[in-house]
Amino acid sequence: MNALADPIARQLEDAARAARAAAGQLARAGRPAKDQALLAAASAIRARQEAILAANAADLEAAPGLTAAFRDRLVLNPARIEAMAKGLEEVAALPDPVGRVLAEWTRPNGLVFRRVAQPLGVVGMIYESRPNVTADAAALCLKAGSAVLLRGGTEGARSSAAIHACMAEGLRAADLPEAAVQIAPTQDRAFVGAMLRAAGLIDLIIPRGGKGLVTRVMEEARVPVLAHAEGLCHTYIHARADHGMARRLLANAKMRRTGVCGATETLLIDAAIAPELLPLLVEDLAALGCSFKADERARSILPALPVATEADFATEWLDSILSIKVVDGVESALAHIRRYGSEHTEAIVTEDAEVAAAFLNGLDSAVGMWNASTQFCDGGEFGFGAEIGIATGRLHARGPVALEQLCTYRYHVIGTGQTRA
Amino acid sequence: MNALADPIARQLEDAARAARAAAGQLARAGRPAKDQALLAAASAIRARQEAILAANAADLEAAPGLTAAFRDRLVLNPARIEAMAKGLEEVAALPDPVGRVLAEWTRPNGLVFRRVAQPLGVVGMIYESRPNVTADAAALCLKAGSAVLLRGGTEGARSSAAIHACMAEGLRAADLPEAAVQIAPTQDRAFVGAMLRAAGLIDLIIPRGGKGLVTRVMEEARVPVLAHAEGLCHTYIHARADHGMARRLLANAKMRRTGVCGATETLLIDAAIAPELLPLLVEDLAALGCSFKADERARSILPALPVATEADFATEWLDSILSIKVVDGVESALAHIRRYGSEHTEAIVTEDAEVAAAFLNGLDSAVGMWNASTQFCDGGEFGFGAEIGIATGRLHARGPVALEQLCTYRYHVIGTGQTRA
Repeated sequence: MNALADPIARQLEDAARAARAAAGQLARAGRPAKDQALLAAASAIRARQEAILAANAADLEAAPGLTAAFRDRLVLNPARIEAMAKGLEEVAALPDPVGRVLAEWTRPNGLVFRRVAQPLGVVGMIYESRPNVTADAAALCLKAGSAVLLRGGTEGARSSAAIHACMAEGLRAADLPEAAVQIAPTQDRAFVGAMLRAAGLIDLIIPRGGKGLVTRVMEEARVPVLAHAEGLCHTYIHARADHGMARRLLANAKMRRTGVCGATETLLIDAAIAPELLPLLVEDLAALGCSFKADERARSILPALPVATEADFATEWLDSILSIKVVDGVESALAHIRRYGSEHTEAIVTEDAEVAAAFLNGLDSAVGMWNASTQFCDGGEFGFGAEIGIATGRLHARGPVALEQLCTYRYHVIGTGQTRA
Repeated sequence: MNALADPIARQLEDAARAARAAAGQLARAGRPAKDQALLAAASAIRARQEAILAANAADLEAAPGLTAAFRDRLVLNPARIEAMAKGLEEVAALPDPVGRVLAEWTRPNGLVFRRVAQPLGVVGMIYESRPNVTADAAALCLKAGSAVLLRGGTEGARSSAAIHACMAEGLRAADLPEAAVQIAPTQDRAFVGAMLRAAGLIDLIIPRGGKGLVTRVMEEARVPVLAHAEGLCHTYIHARADHGMARRLLANAKMRRTGVCGATETLLIDAAIAPELLPLLVEDLAALGCSFKADERARSILPALPVATEADFATEWLDSILSIKVVDGVESALAHIRRYGSEHTEAIVTEDAEVAAAFLNGLDSAVGMWNASTQFCDGGEFGFGAEIGIATGRLHARGPVALEQLCTYRYHVIGTGQTRA
């Protein structure tokens, strides 16, 4: 990147260098200062509620052609603003992830080795229209001791700026550098590109939004990315499943919320139990408003079901639609998941511990579940407190990305004058 | 990458897909099979010593213009071949990193969460002329349950092929897929580029070689990379150092081996002790054949020392040369390290525990040492067994990369029918 020739790249570089310097101060700040900043920011969000709502109203007015779903993601109200403030307080209450001794051992020569959790440095956050991501991401990065550069969707720019002002107030109150939490200085789309190319300036990019955004980020980024492009999750009902449990789990995994990445998109069911159980499962889900795409073997049991194409099994519906395939045991289920899955979350329902182990050990996915709903794939449900996203890559962190996953580590080696032979 | 239009890309894709399938089998293979393959490969290396030496002789003959250093890296002899075989046996003796339960907890709803170590998948290894890397990297990846695609330097291609044949023999003996350890099907340099672009096909690239190779890999790769471009390591002698210890440590850190990445390149010494101690340090090192580049304050003590330029402090000498700078305490030392260092390994020599803590906590480097030689930055010295390299990035792994660092993790969530509210 030739910063001199490209004003956007220069803006990025200036922001990132300020973030790097702030990250150094943040890394050495103790828990009290970080928590103080978070609590002061929460107070500021409550105190500035009217200003935030006004900014949000201006955002909504400036973009009249929005779909209802987009508008719902963008709109703020007093309840959502209070939830943001509470979210900051919850992050303040979480333990400090920095400085944890992850491992410690002593070598025969007396050298003591400690692996110690450390802040990542500078995080780049690229997201769409939900203004609350501004507060949530800032809080998690701050608590993890990293500076963050936030680039939210243009439609929510005024809302994000109003929320960012509260974060800045919190940082000032705790005598921490304001550059630790920055919003992009421009809404020019080229700034996103500059962030993605900023290897060495930004340590990690986290995209949050639809598949289009995440895929673009993954494909273009020269900076490491933690993300998932999609959550094409499977629930596999094994021949020795408890039928009542299978019905409850599938209904929850598919229909509790259909738009979340941990929602089940495809049911795999063993041929041995399909004739008896599948009609009940379909009846349960149909009553909840679900429709279906079924393979030929499923349609031989329930001929009224629409046909599933190859493409359907590769589709993350994020809707009240379930793909159904009849399989012949755990290896057949695993083969389907490896072919069509997104390495996100898969569940098996069975009373057979050996089969469950074969399933869990045979997966490549970030999360494998046994007799549980795939919708439990969430940092809060894992006990991590808030999460910043879910990762399906294989490096650094998989599954929910929360405070611990926002850290790296460093070794401390403590000697008494040892030299190497 | 349009594989159909590009025969090199197609070769890479075929190799990587075969590797992916083999990785699946390897991931589910138990420790006995993996160890059997390693031991059988060690036997094959001993049995085929003559063939390996002949291949090596052909490599040397085909490249008559080599420098002495290059030739030394490329040449094999019976001792080096025996060391390779022993290396494979040592990896076989290490514990299996796959399947370790890294963390386990239970949530209030009864869900049990386990974080379990898993193989990464497909590793790409890009290296220069040392033929032993073929055996070492193959052994570590195999033991870690990942397939590996090896692309060594053209000059050592015959040697690598002969060693690879032994690895293949080991895999066959253990009934494991030969595609788990592959050498590049072509010496075309475009194959390296294809590897670097193979996001989704290769999960991790590890480069091993000079700074030029590593920097190219880091700059061009679209696949995650674990590496260090350089090891510009510092030893900081604090005002309250034990002088005898400081002399022993610096001599070892600089001169034990000057060509390794953990060798100290720059001495930082506190102004308070420099007049007394610096002449002794210089005398010690000069007696070992070291020369010097000194800042003005050091030259005010020892005027005969050559002047250090700004560029000298940014140079990884990998030679019997030491840059010297006089500093004013720990913050001054840290500021120099942050400006010129490579985030690899730095050491402090002091009897003051508080100062040592400030130094260790103030670093951004992968490894910080207190009263120990920087040359201990090595997987074997850390107790990891063999290492495949040293990483200075901030994601996934830092410091020595050994079996544990070659793994990712996955969550197993075990329920009794829990649904999410």
